Amino acid sequence: MNDHLFLSMRIKDLHKQEAIINATVELVNEIGFVSSSVSKIAKKANVSPATLYIYYENKEDLLVSTYVELKKKMGKELLKNIDISFPIRDIFFLFWKNTFNFIEKNRSFYKYSEQFSNSPYIELVDQAELEKNFEPFFRIIQKGIEQKIIKDVPFEILAAFIFYPVTSISNSKLCTGTEISDEIIETSFNLAWDAIKL
Amino acid sequence: MNDHLFLSMRIKDLHKQEAIINATVELVNEIGFVSSSVSKIAKKANVSPATLYIYYENKEDLLVSTYVELKKKMGKELLKNIDISFPIRDIFFLFWKNTFNFIEKNRSFYKYSEQFSNSPYIELVDQAELEKNFEPFFRIIQKGIEQKIIKDVPFEILAAFIFYPVTSISNSKLCTGTEISDEIIETSFNLAWDAIKL
Repeated sequence: MNDHLFLSMRIKDLHKQEAIINATVELVNEIGFVSSSVSKIAKKANVSPATLYIYYENKEDLLVSTYVELKKKMGKELLKNIDISFPIRDIFFLFWKNTFNFIEKNRSFYKYSEQFSNSPYIELVDQAELEKNFEPFFRIIQKGIEQKIIKDVPFEILAAFIFYPVTSISNSKLCTGTEISDEIIETSFNLAWDAIKL
Repeated sequence: MNDHLFLSMRIKDLHKQEAIINATVELVNEIGFVSSSVSKIAKKANVSPATLYIYYENKEDLLVSTYVELKKKMGKELLKNIDISFPIRDIFFLFWKNTFNFIEKNRSFYKYSEQFSNSPYIELVDQAELEKNFEPFFRIIQKGIEQKIIKDVPFEILAAFIFYPVTSISNSKLCTGTEISDEIIETSFNLAWDAIKL
Protein backbone atom coordinates (compact mmCIF):
# COMPACT_ATOMS: atom_id res chain seq x y z
CA MET A 1 0.00 0.00 0.00
CA ASN A 2 1.44 3.42 -0.82
CA ASP A 3 1.87 6.06 1.89
CA HIS A 4 -0.79 8.33 0.51
CA LEU A 5 -3.44 5.62 0.49
CA PHE A 6 -2.41 4.52 3.97
CA LEU A 7 -2.74 8.07 5.30
CA SER A 8 -6.14 8.63 3.75
CA MET A 9 -7.34 5.34 5.28
CA ARG A 10 -6.04 6.42 8.68
CA ILE A 11 -7.97 9.68 8.39
CA LYS A 12 -11.10 7.82 7.37
CA ASP A 13 -10.62 5.61 10.44
CA LEU A 14 -10.36 8.63 12.73
CA HIS A 15 -13.49 10.16 11.21
CA LYS A 16 -15.38 6.93 11.77
CA GLN A 17 -14.22 6.70 15.36
CA GLU A 18 -15.21 10.30 15.97
CA ALA A 19 -18.65 9.65 14.47
CA ILE A 20 -19.06 6.62 16.73
CA ILE A 21 -18.03 8.56 19.85
CA ASN A 22 -20.39 11.43 18.99
CA ALA A 23 -23.26 9.01 18.30
CA THR A 24 -22.63 7.29 21.66
CA VAL A 25 -22.81 10.60 23.51
CA GLU A 26 -25.96 11.69 21.70
CA LEU A 27 -27.84 8.42 22.12
CA VAL A 28 -26.92 7.95 25.78
CA ASN A 29 -28.00 11.52 26.56
CA GLU A 30 -31.28 10.85 24.75
CA ILE A 31 -32.28 7.41 26.03
CA GLY A 32 -29.82 6.47 28.79
CA PHE A 33 -27.14 3.81 29.18
CA VAL A 34 -29.38 0.79 29.53
CA SER A 35 -31.41 1.32 26.35
CA SER A 36 -28.42 2.37 24.23
CA SER A 37 -27.38 -0.71 22.21
CA VAL A 38 -24.38 -1.16 19.92
CA SER A 39 -26.68 -1.53 16.90
CA LYS A 40 -28.57 1.70 17.68
CA ILE A 41 -25.28 3.56 18.16
CA ALA A 42 -23.86 2.17 14.90
CA LYS A 43 -27.01 3.24 13.07
CA LYS A 44 -26.77 6.78 14.49
CA ALA A 45 -23.06 6.95 13.53
CA ASN A 46 -23.90 5.74 10.03
CA VAL A 47 -21.58 2.74 10.22
CA SER A 48 -22.33 -0.97 10.25
CA PRO A 49 -22.21 -2.81 13.62
CA ALA A 50 -19.35 -4.89 12.12
CA THR A 51 -17.33 -1.68 11.59
CA LEU A 52 -18.01 -0.58 15.15
CA TYR A 53 -16.72 -3.92 16.45
CA ILE A 54 -13.38 -3.29 14.68
CA TYR A 55 -12.73 -0.45 17.09
CA TYR A 56 -14.62 -1.49 20.22
CA GLU A 57 -14.95 -4.91 21.77
CA ASN A 58 -18.49 -4.47 23.07
CA LYS A 59 -20.95 -1.93 24.45
CA GLU A 60 -19.06 -1.66 27.74
CA ASP A 61 -15.78 -0.96 25.95
CA LEU A 62 -17.48 1.66 23.78
CA LEU A 63 -19.08 3.48 26.73
CA VAL A 64 -15.86 3.44 28.74
CA SER A 65 -13.71 4.53 25.76
CA THR A 66 -16.06 7.42 25.07
CA TYR A 67 -15.66 8.62 28.64
CA VAL A 68 -11.86 8.22 28.58
CA GLU A 69 -11.66 10.07 25.24
CA LEU A 70 -13.72 12.92 26.67
CA LYS A 71 -11.52 13.24 29.74
CA LYS A 72 -8.42 13.34 27.53
CA LYS A 73 -9.91 16.17 25.47
CA MET A 74 -11.00 17.94 28.65
CA GLY A 75 -7.52 17.70 30.20
CA LYS A 76 -6.01 19.32 27.11
CA GLU A 77 -8.59 22.13 26.98
CA LEU A 78 -8.40 22.91 30.69
CA LEU A 79 -4.63 23.34 30.58
CA LYS A 80 -4.69 25.46 27.42
CA ASN A 81 -2.53 28.63 27.50
CA ILE A 82 -1.23 27.68 30.93
CA ASP A 83 2.48 28.02 31.55
CA ILE A 84 3.84 26.61 34.79
CA SER A 85 6.04 29.72 35.18
CA PHE A 86 2.99 32.03 35.53
CA PRO A 87 2.06 33.32 39.02
CA ILE A 88 -0.09 30.68 40.71
CA ARG A 89 -3.20 32.87 40.98
CA ASP A 90 -3.04 33.53 37.21
CA ILE A 91 -2.73 29.81 36.51
CA PHE A 92 -5.82 29.10 38.59
CA PHE A 93 -7.73 31.88 36.89
CA LEU A 94 -6.90 30.54 33.42
CA PHE A 95 -7.88 27.06 34.55
CA TRP A 96 -11.20 28.42 35.90
CA LYS A 97 -11.89 30.29 32.66
CA ASN A 98 -10.92 27.28 30.53
CA THR A 99 -13.32 25.09 32.53
CA PHE A 100 -16.23 27.45 31.84
CA ASN A 101 -15.31 27.55 28.15
CA PHE A 102 -15.02 23.79 27.95
CA ILE A 103 -18.42 23.21 29.56
CA GLU A 104 -20.02 25.89 27.40
CA LYS A 105 -18.71 24.33 24.17
CA ASN A 106 -19.17 20.70 25.19
CA ARG A 107 -22.48 20.57 27.02
CA SER A 108 -23.51 17.22 25.54
CA PHE A 109 -20.11 15.67 26.26
CA TYR A 110 -20.28 17.09 29.74
CA LYS A 111 -23.74 15.68 30.33
CA TYR A 112 -22.56 12.24 29.22
CA SER A 113 -19.61 12.46 31.57
CA GLU A 114 -21.78 13.46 34.54
CA GLN A 115 -24.13 10.55 33.89
CA PHE A 116 -21.23 8.16 33.39
CA SER A 117 -19.60 9.16 36.70
CA ASN A 118 -22.86 8.31 38.46
CA SER A 119 -23.22 4.95 36.70
CA PRO A 120 -21.71 1.56 37.61
CA TYR A 121 -19.50 1.80 34.46
CA ILE A 122 -17.24 4.23 36.34
CA GLU A 123 -15.81 1.19 38.19
CA LEU A 124 -14.31 -0.03 34.90
CA VAL A 125 -12.20 3.08 34.38
CA ASP A 126 -8.51 3.11 35.29
CA GLN A 127 -8.52 6.22 37.50
CA ALA A 128 -4.71 6.50 37.62
CA GLU A 129 -4.66 6.57 33.81
CA LEU A 130 -7.35 9.29 33.77
CA GLU A 131 -5.51 11.43 36.27
CA LYS A 132 -2.52 11.58 33.93
CA ASN A 133 -4.50 14.05 31.83
CA PHE A 134 -4.44 16.48 34.73
CA GLU A 135 -0.90 15.80 35.95
CA PRO A 136 0.52 19.29 35.24
CA PHE A 137 -2.29 20.73 37.32
CA PHE A 138 -1.47 18.48 40.27
CA ARG A 139 2.14 19.69 40.09
CA ILE A 140 0.95 23.32 40.16
CA ILE A 141 -1.15 22.64 43.26
CA GLN A 142 1.80 20.94 44.94
CA LYS A 143 4.02 23.92 44.13
CA GLY A 144 1.38 26.31 45.53
CA ILE A 145 1.21 24.35 48.78
CA GLU A 146 5.01 24.28 49.11
CA GLN A 147 5.20 28.03 48.49
CA LYS A 148 2.54 28.56 51.16
CA ILE A 149 0.16 30.18 48.67
CA ILE A 150 -2.42 27.37 48.66
CA LYS A 151 -3.89 25.77 51.79
CA ASP A 152 -2.24 22.50 52.76
CA VAL A 153 -5.36 20.29 52.73
CA PRO A 154 -6.08 17.01 50.90
CA PHE A 155 -6.27 17.35 47.12
CA GLU A 156 -9.89 16.15 47.07
CA ILE A 157 -10.95 19.11 49.21
CA LEU A 158 -9.14 21.63 46.99
CA ALA A 159 -10.66 19.97 43.91
CA ALA A 160 -14.15 20.41 45.35
CA PHE A 161 -13.63 24.18 45.22
CA ILE A 162 -11.71 24.42 41.93
CA PHE A 163 -13.54 21.93 39.68
CA TYR A 164 -17.09 21.48 40.92
CA PRO A 165 -18.46 24.98 41.48
CA VAL A 166 -18.01 25.70 37.75
CA THR A 167 -20.41 22.91 36.82
CA SER A 168 -23.04 24.14 39.20
CA ILE A 169 -22.72 27.79 38.06
CA SER A 170 -22.78 26.75 34.38
CA ASN A 171 -26.00 24.85 34.92
CA SER A 172 -27.67 27.65 36.88
CA LYS A 173 -29.92 30.31 35.46
CA LEU A 174 -26.94 32.70 35.52
CA CYS A 175 -25.70 30.91 32.41
CA THR A 176 -28.81 30.23 30.36
CA GLY A 177 -27.75 32.68 27.63
CA THR A 178 -25.49 31.69 24.76
CA GLU A 179 -22.30 32.89 26.34
CA ILE A 180 -21.12 32.95 29.95
CA SER A 181 -20.17 36.51 30.82
CA ASP A 182 -16.65 37.46 31.92
CA GLU A 183 -18.21 39.10 34.96
CA ILE A 184 -19.62 35.80 36.21
CA ILE A 185 -16.33 34.02 35.54
CA GLU A 186 -14.36 36.69 37.43
CA THR A 187 -16.79 37.10 40.33
CA SER A 188 -17.02 33.38 40.94
CA PHE A 189 -13.25 32.99 40.62
CA ASN A 190 -12.78 35.38 43.54
CA LEU A 191 -14.74 32.98 45.73
CA ALA A 192 -12.75 29.97 44.51
CA TRP A 193 -9.45 31.72 45.08
CA ASP A 194 -10.45 32.89 48.58
CA ALA A 195 -11.39 29.27 49.34
CA ILE A 196 -8.06 27.74 48.38
CA LYS A 197 -5.53 30.49 49.14
CA LEU A 198 -3.68 30.42 52.45
CA MET B 1 -66.03 4.44 59.43
CA ASN B 2 -64.81 4.91 63.00
CA ASP B 3 -61.81 7.14 63.75
CA HIS B 4 -59.55 4.30 64.73
CA LEU B 5 -60.13 2.42 61.51
CA PHE B 6 -59.68 5.62 59.50
CA LEU B 7 -56.33 6.34 61.22
CA SER B 8 -55.00 2.84 60.70
CA MET B 9 -55.93 3.05 57.00
CA ARG B 10 -54.12 6.38 56.73
CA ILE B 11 -50.99 4.84 58.27
CA LYS B 12 -51.23 1.88 55.91
CA ASP B 13 -51.47 4.38 53.04
CA LEU B 14 -48.35 6.20 54.17
CA HIS B 15 -46.45 2.92 54.49
CA LYS B 16 -47.47 1.98 50.96
CA GLN B 17 -46.43 5.35 49.57
CA GLU B 18 -43.09 5.09 51.34
CA ALA B 19 -42.56 1.60 49.91
CA ILE B 20 -43.36 2.90 46.42
CA ILE B 21 -40.95 5.84 46.76
CA ASN B 22 -38.18 3.57 48.04
CA ALA B 23 -38.78 1.06 45.25
CA THR B 24 -38.64 3.86 42.66
CA VAL B 25 -35.29 5.06 44.00
CA GLU B 26 -33.84 1.56 44.12
CA LEU B 27 -34.99 0.53 40.65
CA VAL B 28 -33.95 3.76 38.94
CA ASN B 29 -30.50 3.55 40.54
CA GLU B 30 -30.22 -0.03 39.32
CA ILE B 31 -31.52 0.14 35.76
CA GLY B 32 -32.04 3.83 34.93
CA PHE B 33 -35.09 5.98 34.18
CA VAL B 34 -35.93 4.63 30.75
CA SER B 35 -36.11 0.95 31.72
CA SER B 36 -37.92 1.56 35.01
CA SER B 37 -41.61 0.87 34.35
CA VAL B 38 -44.57 1.34 36.67
CA SER B 39 -45.18 -2.41 36.75
CA LYS B 40 -41.57 -3.17 37.73
CA ILE B 41 -41.68 -0.51 40.45
CA ALA B 42 -45.00 -1.84 41.78
CA LYS B 43 -43.54 -5.34 41.90
CA LYS B 44 -40.49 -4.15 43.83
CA ALA B 45 -42.70 -2.21 46.27
CA ASN B 46 -44.87 -5.29 46.74
CA VAL B 47 -48.07 -3.53 45.67
CA SER B 48 -50.29 -4.05 42.64
CA PRO B 49 -49.98 -1.60 39.73
CA ALA B 50 -53.62 -0.64 40.44
CA THR B 51 -52.65 0.41 43.96
CA LEU B 52 -49.76 2.46 42.63
CA TYR B 53 -52.11 4.28 40.27
CA ILE B 54 -54.24 5.37 43.26
CA TYR B 55 -51.36 7.56 44.40
CA TYR B 56 -49.60 8.44 41.15
CA GLU B 57 -51.08 9.30 37.78
CA ASN B 58 -48.32 7.73 35.68
CA LYS B 59 -44.60 6.99 35.56
CA GLU B 60 -43.73 10.64 35.05
CA ASP B 61 -45.78 11.69 38.07
CA LEU B 62 -44.15 8.96 40.16
CA LEU B 63 -40.59 9.94 39.19
CA VAL B 64 -41.23 13.64 39.75
CA SER B 65 -43.04 13.05 43.08
CA THR B 66 -40.16 10.91 44.30
CA TYR B 67 -37.74 13.73 43.56
CA VAL B 68 -39.95 16.36 45.20
CA GLU B 69 -40.41 14.14 48.26
CA LEU B 70 -36.64 13.74 48.57
CA LYS B 71 -36.01 17.47 48.34
CA LYS B 72 -38.60 18.08 51.04
CA LYS B 73 -36.87 15.60 53.34
CA MET B 74 -33.49 17.11 52.46
CA GLY B 75 -34.62 20.65 53.23
CA LYS B 76 -35.79 19.54 56.67
CA GLU B 77 -32.57 17.67 57.45
CA LEU B 78 -30.26 20.44 56.22
CA LEU B 79 -31.93 23.03 58.44
CA LYS B 80 -31.97 20.76 61.52
CA ASN B 81 -30.75 22.38 64.79
CA ILE B 82 -30.39 25.71 63.02
CA ASP B 83 -31.72 28.80 64.77
CA ILE B 84 -31.82 32.02 62.82
CA SER B 85 -30.52 33.89 65.91
CA PHE B 86 -27.16 32.00 65.84
CA PRO B 87 -24.06 33.82 64.52
CA ILE B 88 -24.00 33.47 60.73
CA ARG B 89 -20.75 31.46 60.61
CA ASP B 90 -22.23 28.93 63.07
CA ILE B 91 -25.37 28.62 60.96
CA PHE B 92 -23.29 27.88 57.87
CA PHE B 93 -21.18 25.36 59.75
CA LEU B 94 -24.28 23.50 60.96
CA PHE B 95 -25.69 23.56 57.46
CA TRP B 96 -22.40 22.17 56.09
CA LYS B 97 -22.32 19.41 58.71
CA ASN B 98 -26.00 18.57 58.13
CA THR B 99 -25.36 18.26 54.40
CA PHE B 100 -22.56 15.74 54.98
CA ASN B 101 -24.77 13.79 57.37
CA PHE B 102 -27.69 13.81 54.95
CA ILE B 103 -25.58 12.52 52.04
CA GLU B 104 -23.96 9.89 54.24
CA LYS B 105 -27.32 8.54 55.43
CA ASN B 106 -29.15 8.90 52.10
CA ARG B 107 -26.66 7.84 49.46
CA SER B 108 -29.24 6.05 47.31
CA PHE B 109 -31.69 8.93 47.54
CA TYR B 110 -28.87 11.30 46.70
CA LYS B 111 -27.83 9.26 43.70
CA TYR B 112 -31.41 9.28 42.42
CA SER B 113 -31.58 13.03 42.84
CA GLU B 114 -28.30 13.60 40.98
CA GLN B 115 -29.51 11.47 38.07
CA PHE B 116 -32.89 13.14 38.08
CA SER B 117 -31.36 16.63 37.93
CA ASN B 118 -29.44 15.57 34.82
CA SER B 119 -32.53 14.06 33.15
CA PRO B 120 -35.23 15.75 31.05
CA TYR B 121 -37.73 15.09 33.91
CA ILE B 122 -36.22 18.02 35.80
CA GLU B 123 -38.15 20.33 33.42
CA LEU B 124 -41.40 19.04 34.95
CA VAL B 125 -40.53 20.20 38.47
CA ASP B 126 -41.91 23.43 39.86
CA GLN B 127 -38.61 25.02 40.95
CA ALA B 128 -40.30 27.79 42.96
CA GLU B 129 -42.17 25.12 44.94
CA LEU B 130 -38.92 23.22 45.57
CA GLU B 131 -37.09 26.30 46.74
CA LYS B 132 -39.65 26.78 49.49
CA ASN B 133 -37.94 23.91 51.32
CA PHE B 134 -34.81 26.02 51.61
CA GLU B 135 -36.48 29.38 52.25
CA PRO B 136 -35.09 29.94 55.79
CA PHE B 137 -31.62 29.43 54.36
CA PHE B 138 -32.16 32.07 51.67
CA ARG B 139 -33.22 34.50 54.40
CA ILE B 140 -30.01 33.77 56.35
CA ILE B 141 -27.90 34.45 53.25
CA GLN B 142 -29.75 37.70 52.67
CA LYS B 143 -29.17 38.72 56.28
CA GLY B 144 -25.44 37.87 55.94
CA ILE B 145 -25.15 40.02 52.83
CA GLU B 146 -26.95 42.95 54.50
CA GLN B 147 -24.70 42.68 57.55
CA LYS B 148 -21.64 42.69 55.25
CA ILE B 149 -20.53 39.27 56.48
CA ILE B 150 -21.25 37.40 53.23
CA LYS B 151 -20.07 38.54 49.78
CA ASP B 152 -22.75 40.36 47.79
CA VAL B 153 -22.76 38.10 44.70
CA PRO B 154 -25.64 36.28 42.96
CA PHE B 155 -27.16 33.48 45.03
CA GLU B 156 -26.22 30.85 42.41
CA ILE B 157 -22.53 31.64 42.90
CA LEU B 158 -22.76 31.39 46.68
CA ALA B 159 -24.69 28.13 46.34
CA ALA B 160 -21.90 26.67 44.19
CA PHE B 161 -19.57 26.97 47.18
CA ILE B 162 -21.98 26.04 49.97
CA PHE B 163 -23.93 23.13 48.46
CA TYR B 164 -21.88 21.46 45.75
CA PRO B 165 -18.41 20.92 47.24
CA VAL B 166 -19.97 18.62 49.87
CA THR B 167 -21.19 16.22 47.17
CA SER B 168 -17.81 16.07 45.54
CA ILE B 169 -15.97 15.52 48.85
CA SER B 170 -18.51 12.88 49.96
CA ASN B 171 -17.95 10.96 46.74
CA SER B 172 -14.16 11.18 46.90
CA LYS B 173 -11.85 8.60 48.38
CA LEU B 174 -11.62 10.78 51.53
CA CYS B 175 -15.06 9.46 52.44
CA THR B 176 -15.00 5.79 51.45
CA GLY B 177 -15.18 4.62 55.08
CA THR B 178 -18.44 4.21 56.94
CA GLU B 179 -18.37 7.62 58.58
CA ILE B 180 -17.14 10.99 57.38
CA SER B 181 -14.66 12.31 59.94
CA ASP B 182 -15.22 15.60 61.78
CA GLU B 183 -11.76 16.64 60.63
CA ILE B 184 -12.78 16.50 56.97
CA ILE B 185 -16.02 18.34 57.69
CA GLU B 186 -14.18 21.10 59.60
CA THR B 187 -11.23 21.43 57.20
CA SER B 188 -13.47 21.67 54.15
CA PHE B 189 -15.79 24.10 55.91
CA ASN B 190 -12.88 26.53 56.35
CA LEU B 191 -12.53 26.66 52.57
CA ALA B 192 -16.26 27.16 52.05
CA TRP B 193 -16.40 29.91 54.63
CA ASP B 194 -13.34 31.69 53.19
CA ALA B 195 -15.05 31.53 49.79
CA ILE B 196 -18.28 33.21 50.83
CA LYS B 197 -17.24 35.56 53.65
CA LEU B 198 -16.54 39.20 52.83
